[in-house]
Amino acid sequence: MASSVASAPAPAAAPDRVPSKAPKRSSIQVMQEFLGMGVSKHHNPDSEKRKMTLTDWGKFKTVSWRADAQRDYTEHTSVVLASENKFSAYMMEFWTWGVPAVVGVLTATSGSFIEKCVEFYGMTRFGYCKNPYIFVAGKEKCLEWQDWAPMLSNQGYGSFIFISTFIAAVSATLTWAFAPMSRGSGIPEVKTILGGFVFPDALSGRTLVIKIIGLAMSVGSGLACGKEGPLVHISCCWCSFICKFFPRYKDNEAKQRELLSCACASGVAVAFGAPLGGVLFSLEEASTIFPMRTMLRAFCGSTVAAMTLAYQDPTGSGKLTMFNCPYDKPPAFTEYPIFIVMGILGGWIGALFVHYNIKICVGRAPGTPFRAKCHIILEVAALSFFTAITSYHLLQLRVLSNAAIRALFHNCADPAVQSPIKQEEFMLNLCDPNDLGKPRLDMDLMYILLVVGVFRHIQMTFTFGTGAASGLFIPSLYVGAALGRIIGMAVYSANETAHFAPKSDDGPFVNGVHPGIYAMLGAAAVLGGVCRVTISLVVIMFELTGGLQLIVPFMIVCMIAKWVGDMYTPGIYDYAIQVRKYPFLHEPDEVTFSTNANDVMDESIDCLHPDCAGVGQLIDCMKEARYGGYPLTVSKTDPSLLGYIHTDQFLQFLVTERETNTFVTNNTRVVFKKYLDNKKEDSRDCLDASKQVDEGVMVVVPNTPASQLQQIFRNLGVRIILVRERAALVGMITKKSFIKHMEELHHSDHCASKTSGGLHEALLPK
Amino acid sequence: MASSVASAPAPAAAPDRVPSKAPKRSSIQVMQEFLGMGVSKHHNPDSEKRKMTLTDWGKFKTVSWRADAQRDYTEHTSVVLASENKFSAYMMEFWTWGVPAVVGVLTATSGSFIEKCVEFYGMTRFGYCKNPYIFVAGKEKCLEWQDWAPMLSNQGYGSFIFISTFIAAVSATLTWAFAPMSRGSGIPEVKTILGGFVFPDALSGRTLVIKIIGLAMSVGSGLACGKEGPLVHISCCWCSFICKFFPRYKDNEAKQRELLSCACASGVAVAFGAPLGGVLFSLEEASTIFPMRTMLRAFCGSTVAAMTLAYQDPTGSGKLTMFNCPYDKPPAFTEYPIFIVMGILGGWIGALFVHYNIKICVGRAPGTPFRAKCHIILEVAALSFFTAITSYHLLQLRVLSNAAIRALFHNCADPAVQSPIKQEEFMLNLCDPNDLGKPRLDMDLMYILLVVGVFRHIQMTFTFGTGAASGLFIPSLYVGAALGRIIGMAVYSANETAHFAPKSDDGPFVNGVHPGIYAMLGAAAVLGGVCRVTISLVVIMFELTGGLQLIVPFMIVCMIAKWVGDMYTPGIYDYAIQVRKYPFLHEPDEVTFSTNANDVMDESIDCLHPDCAGVGQLIDCMKEARYGGYPLTVSKTDPSLLGYIHTDQFLQFLVTERETNTFVTNNTRVVFKKYLDNKKEDSRDCLDASKQVDEGVMVVVPNTPASQLQQIFRNLGVRIILVRERAALVGMITKKSFIKHMEELHHSDHCASKTSGGLHEALLPK
Repeated sequence: MASSVASAPAPAAAPDRVPSKAPKRSSIQVMQEFLGMGVSKHHNPDSEKRKMTLTDWGKFKTVSWRADAQRDYTEHTSVVLASENKFSAYMMEFWTWGVPAVVGVLTATSGSFIEKCVEFYGMTRFGYCKNPYIFVAGKEKCLEWQDWAPMLSNQGYGSFIFISTFIAAVSATLTWAFAPMSRGSGIPEVKTILGGFVFPDALSGRTLVIKIIGLAMSVGSGLACGKEGPLVHISCCWCSFICKFFPRYKDNEAKQRELLSCACASGVAVAFGAPLGGVLFSLEEASTIFPMRTMLRAFCGSTVAAMTLAYQDPTGSGKLTMFNCPYDKPPAFTEYPIFIVMGILGGWIGALFVHYNIKICVGRAPGTPFRAKCHIILEVAALSFFTAITSYHLLQLRVLSNAAIRALFHNCADPAVQSPIKQEEFMLNLCDPNDLGKPRLDMDLMYILLVVGVFRHIQMTFTFGTGAASGLFIPSLYVGAALGRIIGMAVYSANETAHFAPKSDDGPFVNGVHPGIYAMLGAAAVLGGVCRVTISLVVIMFELTGGLQLIVPFMIVCMIAKWVGDMYTPGIYDYAIQVRKYPFLHEPDEVTFSTNANDVMDESIDCLHPDCAGVGQLIDCMKEARYGGYPLTVSKTDPSLLGYIHTDQFLQFLVTERETNTFVTNNTRVVFKKYLDNKKEDSRDCLDASKQVDEGVMVVVPNTPASQLQQIFRNLGVRIILVRERAALVGMITKKSFIKHMEELHHSDHCASKTSGGLHEALLPK
Repeated sequence: MASSVASAPAPAAAPDRVPSKAPKRSSIQVMQEFLGMGVSKHHNPDSEKRKMTLTDWGKFKTVSWRADAQRDYTEHTSVVLASENKFSAYMMEFWTWGVPAVVGVLTATSGSFIEKCVEFYGMTRFGYCKNPYIFVAGKEKCLEWQDWAPMLSNQGYGSFIFISTFIAAVSATLTWAFAPMSRGSGIPEVKTILGGFVFPDALSGRTLVIKIIGLAMSVGSGLACGKEGPLVHISCCWCSFICKFFPRYKDNEAKQRELLSCACASGVAVAFGAPLGGVLFSLEEASTIFPMRTMLRAFCGSTVAAMTLAYQDPTGSGKLTMFNCPYDKPPAFTEYPIFIVMGILGGWIGALFVHYNIKICVGRAPGTPFRAKCHIILEVAALSFFTAITSYHLLQLRVLSNAAIRALFHNCADPAVQSPIKQEEFMLNLCDPNDLGKPRLDMDLMYILLVVGVFRHIQMTFTFGTGAASGLFIPSLYVGAALGRIIGMAVYSANETAHFAPKSDDGPFVNGVHPGIYAMLGAAAVLGGVCRVTISLVVIMFELTGGLQLIVPFMIVCMIAKWVGDMYTPGIYDYAIQVRKYPFLHEPDEVTFSTNANDVMDESIDCLHPDCAGVGQLIDCMKEARYGGYPLTVSKTDPSLLGYIHTDQFLQFLVTERETNTFVTNNTRVVFKKYLDNKKEDSRDCLDASKQVDEGVMVVVPNTPASQLQQIFRNLGVRIILVRERAALVGMITKKSFIKHMEELHHSDHCASKTSGGLHEALLPK
């Protein structure tokens, strides 16, 4: 054993290979011994700390796009292309489009189901339908409606609170008991998975079922959460489920990720009725590797999802646009400075949310004193209780978020809403009761909307990341819409006297000032400040609202909100990834030129040599291996690099050989014949494992700048880089250790130069 | 000299380095000699042919993103970050946003200017304005209008033809005489540049000026061309011009390309009033490397461009949407099968255009018999003459393309167009004269539209790629709109009797059948079939038309048109790049797994060694060097790789040293001290060039699959990959030779397996 696994740069004398008779020990022990033998030319005080984190990351297996693509080619593509059966080649191509399409249909169906359930739960908080039956979704479909109020005291207040709390608690209980991974929005998890790590359980069937049921309940209970992020998670679960039926995708993590990127697009397409926004969200926020090939399939998937959704028409509006708003002319140029201010405010509000939400999430993470005192179901119930208490008295908070946002965005001048009933039900009293075609402008309403916005902001800050399925798109839009409408009302009033912009009836080319437009821009600004997405957010916003003439204002607020927010904190998803300690590799920035491979690499490496140990010994060793693979070098004394052995494949090969090859026993020696200098006679009785050597592993020289390493990891999707000086292997960099290094670098950079460092870094895990 | 440049794998004896006294020869001679000495282990019959092509590509210098990023860091970023002056750091960051913004403003201004000129030239074909002055853009701004007709015979026919021909001829003359690079759309050139090659003259100031003037003329003359593609070229020219003022960008090709990607987005943003479409076009079609950083800047640039355009409002509509169409409800599901058929037809029509246009372009390329007989100006004049003759008699062809497309897209039910004057001027007689709210459905109109569509298709097939600035977006949309409207009319008539879809007044949730919707989808289908873009086309289409409810149908036709078109030919831009023999590297596909580095690499390489020649000799050699750089190996006999020397930098270093360092003369020997095994005493008087060695050059092993090489070239933006077996350099792959190899591979693959091979490959340059 001692001869087969050794530390590479070992200049200390070890004159000749000695056939080992070492008793079986745990491979960890073996490794540690050899680590001790490695000579560390360049002592890194952080390396121990880094190793600790890497152990935390042990459960996340790194995916190698490079190796998986190669494997896909040898195992599937080349076989199918070479076969006479043209049909199988067509089927292979067909399913690369078919799987995203099927996922689209399933996601859209799940989305419709959730929508119906949310309607039902939302209604149930106020009463129930006596006729035709209790399970109708939507009050207007009910022939005979019965409020809880007469049955209970306090005009429905008590029943509202009780039912809300109960539904939320059930949702949390389901999540806690059956699928803890289904809590939260799931986007940080999906992002980590798409970044090239295997995340156990995150996409399991159980998670899928519980997420669908739990999501409907937590949104329907009136918690300050949306169903948009979780739908992305749900579509990825469906995709992972479908992949199990295809041998090509089942065991090939990289190929699966191509489909998951497409699924991501379908999720957003269903969540917002925004097929284009979905593809762009997958591109901009979720996916790490997104070639054109994948984009086209994502496009196909989200088209199918949107069509299915349009066909099922869960909202009954007949349109995909959730908040269709009749503003068909662009705003005046004099209003643009106000939009810029709104962008800045949105960035601030978003950063405020991110900061406190993360603080709260860190405070209630598993293992904290708070969590020890308060069970997670109790927490959700309490949250729901307080949400219900603070929401009941205000009409705009009492209804479901979607209805409130629709009203805030809407134009009082739309003739369709100019009736007293519509006023109450649809516009939530946002129009002037004396002239229904004009917006209400009194201070009372401003005050109410301010309270609404602040309450919802606080509610969502506590709710996001709690123990129930919950997204943050809709509450963010809500907060922004409420605050934006206030600004819009103020600008409208000011314009009545100052007349700096055209009024609504001023001319054919401009909209005039409309509070609803400001609500839409405010919503975009706050969501931009929270998520820091730009192009996909703009597309989603106008697929949501139909505000095509507002593209330029949308672009301005989103960009400014991102700039401003980035000054204070990272985006919510990136920050969540950081505090939850998931491994994730960002895009390279300038800072990474100042270090190079020399500073990042691990110098004490466990290596294999061509003249290896016995089969049984190697199998034991590989079974307990801590690493995904081992470099192959010439010998203990000669660290010339020959290639790389992937643990899993090698183990599989050895086990198969032991079981099927009658000549191979536990004591048969394993050699890599191709690399033996003197093809010794005695290597005849050995098992030749030359084919297991991966020669294509990425190799760099010690002074390669870190920015290039980052590009290699990110753009080529490799999981390991070997560092070689001339022929000799001198170090190894795994994706995880590189991520850790980048985090430290970013950390020190932040503390040294940026004012925001204090605020941001104080929360980071030590 | 002989000792300094040698062929790497030269096992033939060359026992010791001999100080060379070789007389000065041309380095080509020197190189050729050494090439002869190289031992080709693996004889490649194609290698000579490939070398010929590579010589054609000599003028395209390859850009190395890796080396340029490193250089930018050492020369600018690190200097600025280290300096005390915080202001300069802010300015550096500011200009990364500022340059795209300035380019946006300039492009929008150019676009407005061109729009005005086009209006003027277009008008001039019919008459002139007597009052207030002759140079008014748009007939409606003229107080007193004078047709040419009374002055000339034939009711304006003759003058129309004459003036059209004259304007087009002037445009061609300007292009021919002053800036040949300004002809055509310029997108293939921009794509090649963004792919990482330096294209002399393509973005010069002269090209810019002539392109602006010439484009206005060729579009205004009524040629079947649009201004959209050329505007992308214009914005890139502006960007290149602006970059000249910044030392950071002036000499750094990779950094320039980041800004050019942004400029590209601004170009499309101005061309279509589609800022989002612009960013996506740059991402999907134009750019090779488009990280998130660049995307945000592109987003900023195109926002500014769109705002500037909206402010200047050249069309006078007050909206960015060029063809604003009042369809606010989605189509019925029963219409979707027809959309699928339209997608297929669009793909066919597009492929037909691509096939014949390329055939024509190949036939009239410089050096062909046709070109020898017919001067390029004559060709343009003849084209314009025939376009004018075929266009005058049909109202829909006589007006400028934009007006015709607007009419074809429009809805007769729009009350704003329901007057006899609007009927003639705006709707071009497409509505029922008896009931202006309904579309005209008679066979006459169908016949006319068929003729219009076919004529325009033929016209654009001949026009694209001729000797004047000309784009193909607008004519493609035109052809699609005309043919789509015919289908729409047929479906409308069929629905009147069969009633398979709702009629216009059937219900609140569906549009009913509108021929205008079919025109829009037809336009998208044909454009998709021509360009093979998907997501950016969908965004552009609905930024153009405001058809938000049509997103899903747009997605379907674009995707199907791409699928169908790809079966027959590549997209027009990719095909143009192929036949114009520009170097371009596509995304990797499956086929590239079957070959590896061994098959692609050049085995006879000219190398430098640490103990080099004299300064003067080296300078002469480097000045005449055929390659961008040379690998550094230990010695003639020991091909161990040490690093890579970039010719330009090395030459500059040597010249600077010779001029400024008093100890350095022409005879001083140059050594790479760091790499000399025995730091000899006599190396004291030598010039040490160790710092010129680039150790970070990409290195792979011989059996790295080609797909990975392609990813390395494309995603990491390197220009050279060295192939090393253990320590020894065994081969070298340049980006150009790799592209050539891929083309050959694709070629043989096409011929062998695809039916389209014959059609497509017959035209490829041999």
